[in-house]
Amino acid sequence: MSTALKVAIAGLGTVGSGTVALLEQHAALIGRRAGRSVEIVAVSSLEPPSPAIPGARFYADARVMAAEADYDILAELIGGAHGIALEIVRTALTRGKNVVTANKAMIAHHGLELAELAEAKNASFRFEASVGGGIPAIKALKEGLIGNDINLVYGILNGTCNYILTTMRETGRDFSDVLDEAQKLGYAEADPSFDIDGVDTAHKISILASLAFGTEIGFSAVHTDGIRSITATDIRLAEELGYSIRLLGVARRVEGGVMQGVYPCMAPLSSPVARIDGVFNAVVFEGDFVDRVLLEGRGAGSHPTASAVVADIADEAAGRKTMMFGLPRRSLAPLKVVSLDQRIGSYYLRLAVIDKPGVFADIAAALRDEQVSIESVLQRGRKPGEEVALVLTTHETKEAAMLRALERIAALSSVMEPPRMIRIENF
Amino acid sequence: MSTALKVAIAGLGTVGSGTVALLEQHAALIGRRAGRSVEIVAVSSLEPPSPAIPGARFYADARVMAAEADYDILAELIGGAHGIALEIVRTALTRGKNVVTANKAMIAHHGLELAELAEAKNASFRFEASVGGGIPAIKALKEGLIGNDINLVYGILNGTCNYILTTMRETGRDFSDVLDEAQKLGYAEADPSFDIDGVDTAHKISILASLAFGTEIGFSAVHTDGIRSITATDIRLAEELGYSIRLLGVARRVEGGVMQGVYPCMAPLSSPVARIDGVFNAVVFEGDFVDRVLLEGRGAGSHPTASAVVADIADEAAGRKTMMFGLPRRSLAPLKVVSLDQRIGSYYLRLAVIDKPGVFADIAAALRDEQVSIESVLQRGRKPGEEVALVLTTHETKEAAMLRALERIAALSSVMEPPRMIRIENF
Repeated sequence: MSTALKVAIAGLGTVGSGTVALLEQHAALIGRRAGRSVEIVAVSSLEPPSPAIPGARFYADARVMAAEADYDILAELIGGAHGIALEIVRTALTRGKNVVTANKAMIAHHGLELAELAEAKNASFRFEASVGGGIPAIKALKEGLIGNDINLVYGILNGTCNYILTTMRETGRDFSDVLDEAQKLGYAEADPSFDIDGVDTAHKISILASLAFGTEIGFSAVHTDGIRSITATDIRLAEELGYSIRLLGVARRVEGGVMQGVYPCMAPLSSPVARIDGVFNAVVFEGDFVDRVLLEGRGAGSHPTASAVVADIADEAAGRKTMMFGLPRRSLAPLKVVSLDQRIGSYYLRLAVIDKPGVFADIAAALRDEQVSIESVLQRGRKPGEEVALVLTTHETKEAAMLRALERIAALSSVMEPPRMIRIENF
Repeated sequence: MSTALKVAIAGLGTVGSGTVALLEQHAALIGRRAGRSVEIVAVSSLEPPSPAIPGARFYADARVMAAEADYDILAELIGGAHGIALEIVRTALTRGKNVVTANKAMIAHHGLELAELAEAKNASFRFEASVGGGIPAIKALKEGLIGNDINLVYGILNGTCNYILTTMRETGRDFSDVLDEAQKLGYAEADPSFDIDGVDTAHKISILASLAFGTEIGFSAVHTDGIRSITATDIRLAEELGYSIRLLGVARRVEGGVMQGVYPCMAPLSSPVARIDGVFNAVVFEGDFVDRVLLEGRGAGSHPTASAVVADIADEAAGRKTMMFGLPRRSLAPLKVVSLDQRIGSYYLRLAVIDKPGVFADIAAALRDEQVSIESVLQRGRKPGEEVALVLTTHETKEAAMLRALERIAALSSVMEPPRMIRIENF
């Protein structure tokens, strides 16, 4: 057996401490399976770990560790797109050291630069844990489905949002109420905006899109809506109509390029994503030979995420190599962004209208003028002259037309609130 | 770029022709992704392919091709546990050539011998396509979950059975009727016994068990029941009770060893396997760090299976190595078989009884004497003195006790048919 693979771990928070626990607890197992043992030789964090990690030198400054320690692979588990995490990863790669990380934000923002640096230095850069927590989704895509032209990738990529939407459906409670609870339970951060505004999901879908389509990563081109505007009413109506509301990341290869979006959508109750509940994540790939493959598991948490970090470390120990984005950096095609308003799909509309004669005719006319065809109408009756909820679903139409019709509808005097539109995805 | 990886393909049936189609259609893509191009240099089949495969020499005899052709990896896509498939694989390995196959029967029967031979010759032996068709389940288990102690593996591993059970539920029709239809549609073989009697699933679960637990493969130790005895009544009653009947392969690490079984079971409608319909397959792994991971996709068919075969070929091209069973052959622990009668679980019983006083008391006494506790009772009323269906579910009990109670119940004069028992799996 060759000498042990030397690991330096930067950050002993949730993921870092889970990774240390896994490497210590299953050291023998990993060594046997990978054909080479794995040793933690250095760790950095604000406080020295207690108990100490045998054999691991402690660094209070991750930058010093990255620059000076004698390691084969740096596990960057600090997080954050631009700060110290990025600095130490650059340092490690520049030294020709391999890197593993769970840091989706850094990859979404700086992935191309890091891929270039890694290639120049013949170092590997792995990030299985950045998407879907413990789910081996990146390995499945890059290696397991390597023979496929992938045309569609989508998934439930944020457990916080899925927990909130699932709980809203199960309890009938409203968004802010469930968010409060999720924060108390530790399922949502004190500042939840990264999760609930869809930014975290956008990081992840931009990574998956690059891997799936062989294109340069384009995080800023992801159309991103969150779930703050979803009401208990929408969720109830969705269920009546045979749908479940999920926050999805969706990346699709279309005529002229790639369409990337993060948005709450109505998924048919029979669809594979509608049944993924609570904090679980799911990723779906559609390839031309394999057809549909779905992977489901825990998308976050100390131990599941550590499982993915350690899988990357074991691949390094076993000498199994891949290119960071599945292709050499120079072979990645420029990302041609197709705007979401070119989307062809169905829509759910909820309007708060005054129930008086002619209202529906005005709305129907606005839709007709934009060639949007109504599929179903649901009106919850109150007394004439009062505000009622009018719910429509449409047949397939181009999103740009839908938005023009919505603008006209919003301007109608009998429409009391900004119309709510939710995309329907008939996966 | 290094020289191309030279592939010899034995067998141009469903999987072989799909593999050729994929390698030809996506040659450029695979070459870019794997970092090395892949070329078909030889094929064998009963008839020469038409049109011919450019650059590939045709062999009418696979044995001659395996022994004489100049290739790097042999794709054995003929099938069958012991015959020519085994012969050519032995020949290839003896020559130090790598092997890829979709042949679960051969691995289930001869896997240990082949692993030993492959190691001795420093050749790789890959078989992603042998379990779950296009689903990258073996890669997920061996590499993606490498850091986990796996305690439970189960899955819907046979699309024919799942199609039949799904259609029986959806249509209320009986087994033999749906089997006839499945044969006409090409979802079941003319001789369907390998599928419907559970043998195919047993091959697959024995492979997964070895990979998951690091034990020697033990196909003959898999308790195997098929689905012939499942009636439309059982399926309807299961649904009333909140379950779906599925043929599962289950391998569990228990006190004292490993329990492996293939049997139709009642899965709660909320469980991840209950919602896998039609010809789709699903595999579930439970690891100590990752918790539950599920993979779902097409478990058979020319193109999905080719996707898995080509993934293995691409791994070879890219130089990504693993041990055949995830560990060196000598490190595989002897399989300690724990018999299924040691299973602790719940049971569904359906009895055809004459509805007369005292019948239920006799049955209840038999269960009580074996310490089996009744959870629910469902009796479909007919007229007194006629035959009625009495359905019971039990609390958790040891299977051996359940079987003793069943023997006593079967002997009661008021019980008209052999009792039907179905295991309940509360995954």
